[in-house]
Amino acid sequence: MKQMNAVIKAEKGPGFQMVRKDVPEDLGRHEVLVKILATSICGTDVHIYNWDQWSASRIKPPLTVGHEFCGEVIKLGEDVRSVKVGDIVSAETHIVCGVCEFCREGNAHICSNTKIIGVDTDGCFAEYARMPAQNLIKDTSGLDPKYLSVQEPLGNAVHTMLHFDITAKTVAVVGCGPIGLMGVNIAKAVGAKKIIAVEINDYRIQLAKELGADVVINPKTEDIVARVLEETSGLGVDVVAEFSGNKSAIEAAFKYVKAGGEMSMLGIVPDTIEIDLSNDVIFKGVTLYGVIGRKMFKTWNQVQGLIQSGKLDLEKIVTHAFPLEDFETAMAVMKSGNSGKVVMIPNKNKEV
Amino acid sequence: MKQMNAVIKAEKGPGFQMVRKDVPEDLGRHEVLVKILATSICGTDVHIYNWDQWSASRIKPPLTVGHEFCGEVIKLGEDVRSVKVGDIVSAETHIVCGVCEFCREGNAHICSNTKIIGVDTDGCFAEYARMPAQNLIKDTSGLDPKYLSVQEPLGNAVHTMLHFDITAKTVAVVGCGPIGLMGVNIAKAVGAKKIIAVEINDYRIQLAKELGADVVINPKTEDIVARVLEETSGLGVDVVAEFSGNKSAIEAAFKYVKAGGEMSMLGIVPDTIEIDLSNDVIFKGVTLYGVIGRKMFKTWNQVQGLIQSGKLDLEKIVTHAFPLEDFETAMAVMKSGNSGKVVMIPNKNKEV
Amino acid sequence: MKQMNAVIKAEKGPGFQMVRKDVPEDLGRHEVLVKILATSICGTDVHIYNWDQWSASRIKPPLTVGHEFCGEVIKLGEDVRSVKVGDIVSAETHIVCGVCEFCREGNAHICSNTKIIGVDTDGCFAEYARMPAQNLIKDTSGLDPKYLSVQEPLGNAVHTMLHFDITAKTVAVVGCGPIGLMGVNIAKAVGAKKIIAVEINDYRIQLAKELGADVVINPKTEDIVARVLEETSGLGVDVVAEFSGNKSAIEAAFKYVKAGGEMSMLGIVPDTIEIDLSNDVIFKGVTLYGVIGRKMFKTWNQVQGLIQSGKLDLEKIVTHAFPLEDFETAMAVMKSGNSGKVVMIPNKNKEV
Amino acid sequence: MKQMNAVIKAEKGPGFQMVRKDVPEDLGRHEVLVKILATSICGTDVHIYNWDQWSASRIKPPLTVGHEFCGEVIKLGEDVRSVKVGDIVSAETHIVCGVCEFCREGNAHICSNTKIIGVDTDGCFAEYARMPAQNLIKDTSGLDPKYLSVQEPLGNAVHTMLHFDITAKTVAVVGCGPIGLMGVNIAKAVGAKKIIAVEINDYRIQLAKELGADVVINPKTEDIVARVLEETSGLGVDVVAEFSGNKSAIEAAFKYVKAGGEMSMLGIVPDTIEIDLSNDVIFKGVTLYGVIGRKMFKTWNQVQGLIQSGKLDLEKIVTHAFPLEDFETAMAVMKSGNSGKVVMIPNKNKEV
Repeated sequence: MKQMNAVIKAEKGPGFQMVRKDVPEDLGRHEVLVKILATSICGTDVHIYNWDQWSASRIKPPLTVGHEFCGEVIKLGEDVRSVKVGDIVSAETHIVCGVCEFCREGNAHICSNTKIIGVDTDGCFAEYARMPAQNLIKDTSGLDPKYLSVQEPLGNAVHTMLHFDITAKTVAVVGCGPIGLMGVNIAKAVGAKKIIAVEINDYRIQLAKELGADVVINPKTEDIVARVLEETSGLGVDVVAEFSGNKSAIEAAFKYVKAGGEMSMLGIVPDTIEIDLSNDVIFKGVTLYGVIGRKMFKTWNQVQGLIQSGKLDLEKIVTHAFPLEDFETAMAVMKSGNSGKVVMIPNKNKEV
Repeated sequence: MKQMNAVIKAEKGPGFQMVRKDVPEDLGRHEVLVKILATSICGTDVHIYNWDQWSASRIKPPLTVGHEFCGEVIKLGEDVRSVKVGDIVSAETHIVCGVCEFCREGNAHICSNTKIIGVDTDGCFAEYARMPAQNLIKDTSGLDPKYLSVQEPLGNAVHTMLHFDITAKTVAVVGCGPIGLMGVNIAKAVGAKKIIAVEINDYRIQLAKELGADVVINPKTEDIVARVLEETSGLGVDVVAEFSGNKSAIEAAFKYVKAGGEMSMLGIVPDTIEIDLSNDVIFKGVTLYGVIGRKMFKTWNQVQGLIQSGKLDLEKIVTHAFPLEDFETAMAVMKSGNSGKVVMIPNKNKEV
Repeated sequence: MKQMNAVIKAEKGPGFQMVRKDVPEDLGRHEVLVKILATSICGTDVHIYNWDQWSASRIKPPLTVGHEFCGEVIKLGEDVRSVKVGDIVSAETHIVCGVCEFCREGNAHICSNTKIIGVDTDGCFAEYARMPAQNLIKDTSGLDPKYLSVQEPLGNAVHTMLHFDITAKTVAVVGCGPIGLMGVNIAKAVGAKKIIAVEINDYRIQLAKELGADVVINPKTEDIVARVLEETSGLGVDVVAEFSGNKSAIEAAFKYVKAGGEMSMLGIVPDTIEIDLSNDVIFKGVTLYGVIGRKMFKTWNQVQGLIQSGKLDLEKIVTHAFPLEDFETAMAVMKSGNSGKVVMIPNKNKEV
Repeated sequence: MKQMNAVIKAEKGPGFQMVRKDVPEDLGRHEVLVKILATSICGTDVHIYNWDQWSASRIKPPLTVGHEFCGEVIKLGEDVRSVKVGDIVSAETHIVCGVCEFCREGNAHICSNTKIIGVDTDGCFAEYARMPAQNLIKDTSGLDPKYLSVQEPLGNAVHTMLHFDITAKTVAVVGCGPIGLMGVNIAKAVGAKKIIAVEINDYRIQLAKELGADVVINPKTEDIVARVLEETSGLGVDVVAEFSGNKSAIEAAFKYVKAGGEMSMLGIVPDTIEIDLSNDVIFKGVTLYGVIGRKMFKTWNQVQGLIQSGKLDLEKIVTHAFPLEDFETAMAVMKSGNSGKVVMIPNKNKEV
């Protein structure tokens, strides 16, 4: 049996390891073997690397980590009809049951029985990965795999930015990590009236400007609420897209969202938030939406549609690429905050 | 100049007084004189009576109080074309500017320059009242004025209940004061799958059942979250309509709202609420909407449409009626909690 | 191998035949064997019986006909997890591919590769039927199978009536065959302001009134447009729900739909329709929606929610029931027009 | 009394005339005097010039024509508070009643009592014009009046293009007259996936390409339906935006709109259209929307938001500018088809 390189969580505790393991060629009826062409690093991968409390409670080593990728279909399970060998694919990360009330209603993104690739099942920081056919998304753009590998987090950004209509509106993008940066770029691509980003890291402030932010507010040096009001004739922004998960940034957002405005929240907040419901939600007639995953598969259609529109600057969003072997460097860059999306290439200069 | 009875806040401090004052016949160009046929008591009137902190900061005595009514048009200002003498009318309580960004967008209910009848201008606890023509809603149903006088709070209930689609869905109505009771009745009228009411007062628990609640949970004797889950196959309710303004009731609602569910919030919360945004909003993909006033005038069309559908039990919702002269008794009944809507009749057995 | 009674289209040409054939116990991995407790007759079955042009081009005899049913799960294919033996079920009639763009977008009702039960595959006018597990809908109401068997056409009615919001609005239900009658009843259940039905058959006119129509217009004796305008203060109806497929009824509807109004169209029109797009759609700002099948499975959730609301009068909608053996009588009643829904019972007084 | 140049329809019959007439300084309470800085020519102005059947039945000479403009507020009526002297403004062309059911519902664009500037009241092909204050839209962009004068037709384009969501979708823009060209540009500005324009005039084909069309189909030389299907993997376009009013172009659109697709129709069709409702609307689950005017004032907010986004190419859309005195040349250019928007400047080199 053929072997491959894979980056795994070998045992409980911090860090990843590169190992040789069997290529997972034993496919279920509805599974597919994918040769990974590029794989990108998610904040979740950083949590698993660091072995924080959430990871310790969820991850069962040994596990091949990683879930964002672009790959080529190499081999098909017996009943697979939806893709064929040679197709270039990425994957929706949520493996859903298809039969619970949520899946049947068209809300598979909140399926009661979700498993997550690279968290609950072996992932894609490897040369090959086994994937459920129903999770695969075929590429039709012909873009470099380096850019296609970031479609899954781009889906989070799209879900967050486009849940409410932002065309011709003022929008605040709070937190410019890789997904927030994508958010800025999406706002630009769909004709937002004014894009106000909030970010503290200088590298990312600069990127946010290049990706379309009209204004970037650094809460370390400025009063966010005052500045947003100043930029919006005292009315506040029409839509807030929250990517930071930062308590004080969220509390500020409730103050500067316009009456009748809308807030789309993706960033995970470690703590509870104190909200003045009466003044900040009820009297203002505000709408709040919690974003989880990607709509399956409406969001993916939007992702592909935006890529094909030619309006996204993925070459600015993907700031670094390393061979998979240099995963420690890649993780370090990602953790530094001085990056957009960081991509790893598992099969550089290799034949299958 | 003719005089009339009026119930007023005469000076800073608790209580109302009945006085004789001039009928307000000096009409502006766009104003109308209305003979009040019935007027109902709002929770806001109770706050003003009690002279709580909010009232002390907002109300400038002397002021004729009251804002919910049904009356007959008696006299027209020079430019009024939208109603005619003899029309039976009620009024939207928000007097809006018509020129701010919110009014121009069709969101007059959050107009920046709103004045409220009976709060900022003389109200309708009187035999006659002067009203802006643009606020009047003509009756087309022929119902008893006693029932028509409650259309404004019915509008709050309609705005809260129908903002999200509740037909064929499970809905929790939290708090069965007069507006919550209307909420229960509206849920019944539009074909909700299951109506779960939450209330602690026995009188109102009984009324909620008569008005359509399939289940009423009393948080004093039961664990709300456990019971709602039991009633909904462990999934929670599709929609929460929050009328209570009660901190622990609201915190419970965040726990039993279904994933992908929706919350419509009208009840004013005196304090801040601690929300576990990650677990209760984001991971669940929940939507939250703050309800203020009535959509102008979409909500009023819905109110009139529902009345004309014959599906509402207004005769059960209006539990008490008194002559205006007995306003102290009426206020006491309202404050007791043992009532639905309490109506007062200013012109019983009198000729104009 | 056990045998059963089945009503089939034996060969090209008019008529059905009852035959003995094998119970279809050879199940695919994802299939289920269902004992049919009740099955109802659709207009499509009448077309197939009559062998009209559409049938001649689509149906490949021999074929067991019928697609509306309620049954009991008797046996499971190897991979079936979503239902268990003993479950009471009905079926969505569209067997969809799950992988085309439409299925992936949540629009499986317009799947490019749809097969229809009882049209393209053997149906349910039989004692037993083999069904794909993914098409089954479990009952949770405990209702008599006679009523549960009509859920599929009820789904058409729900899709048509609830696509646009009709609560508190005036609605015209055009054509009161069985599905139109359901439409009237749904409008009543969800609090329409005024329900105007259009129908020519006296039996169905009477039923429409009993099911909730405020007004029934018979185009044979009245000018529809004039009468609708009279019933709506000259403005026309907010929403038209078109079930008739009748050219002149549809042309009239374009005239009496209100400016800004909405039209939901289910009835199949044999011919082209001449529309005055400028005057009847553009200048009036009208919206038109073509209804096909049922949203999968949102519509089914609505169907079940409405049944559980207790607001539907299924006992009035199902007007006739016969043993399956009397299928000729049942078809004749259905063709007479003097019926609501006609049900057949395949397993009366029989043991499995 | 001061006099000014004005282009008028002097009497029944073809043509316009330039005359000297009084500046309309006698303002009503709610009116404003505007100095016209730029005014653009609409297709409606061409109809009035040509004196077609519609004009003959509607226009009552003498009338100052024209309704698209940008101007400066010079003088205010007694009750005007919404604008001040010196404001740069354009106008919504529909003068609405504010009290009919449509206005009260937020659908003023279909007001029952609409009067149109330059059609029913004196317009803006003049040095000065009297306008109702409520129709004025203040500029906040500081753009050249030449571009601001086209905001009203831009509003038609925005209403048509943004009624359905086109971001990340394929869209056909049928007819590339000035408004269709704006439509192409809007689709580009909001991130459409692929923009397919349909046009026969070479000048406009070229402009459509420059403004963002990925493909332009000329029905004179190509089979539209075949080509659209070829460009959309055989599925058709997600959204059709119809500006042509051309019968065969519309009939084709019904064929190439995707199942589940949406059609937004603005172009006025002189004749009735034959539609195969069953195959082209019902079985395909298509939605159709008739576009009239601009949503008041949501559409104007979108217009201003898009202008401020910097994503529109107004300098390409406005292809010609003439002094008002050269109105005959301007009309001729407009009628030639070889233009985008044609603008006239009434006050060039003049002092007030």
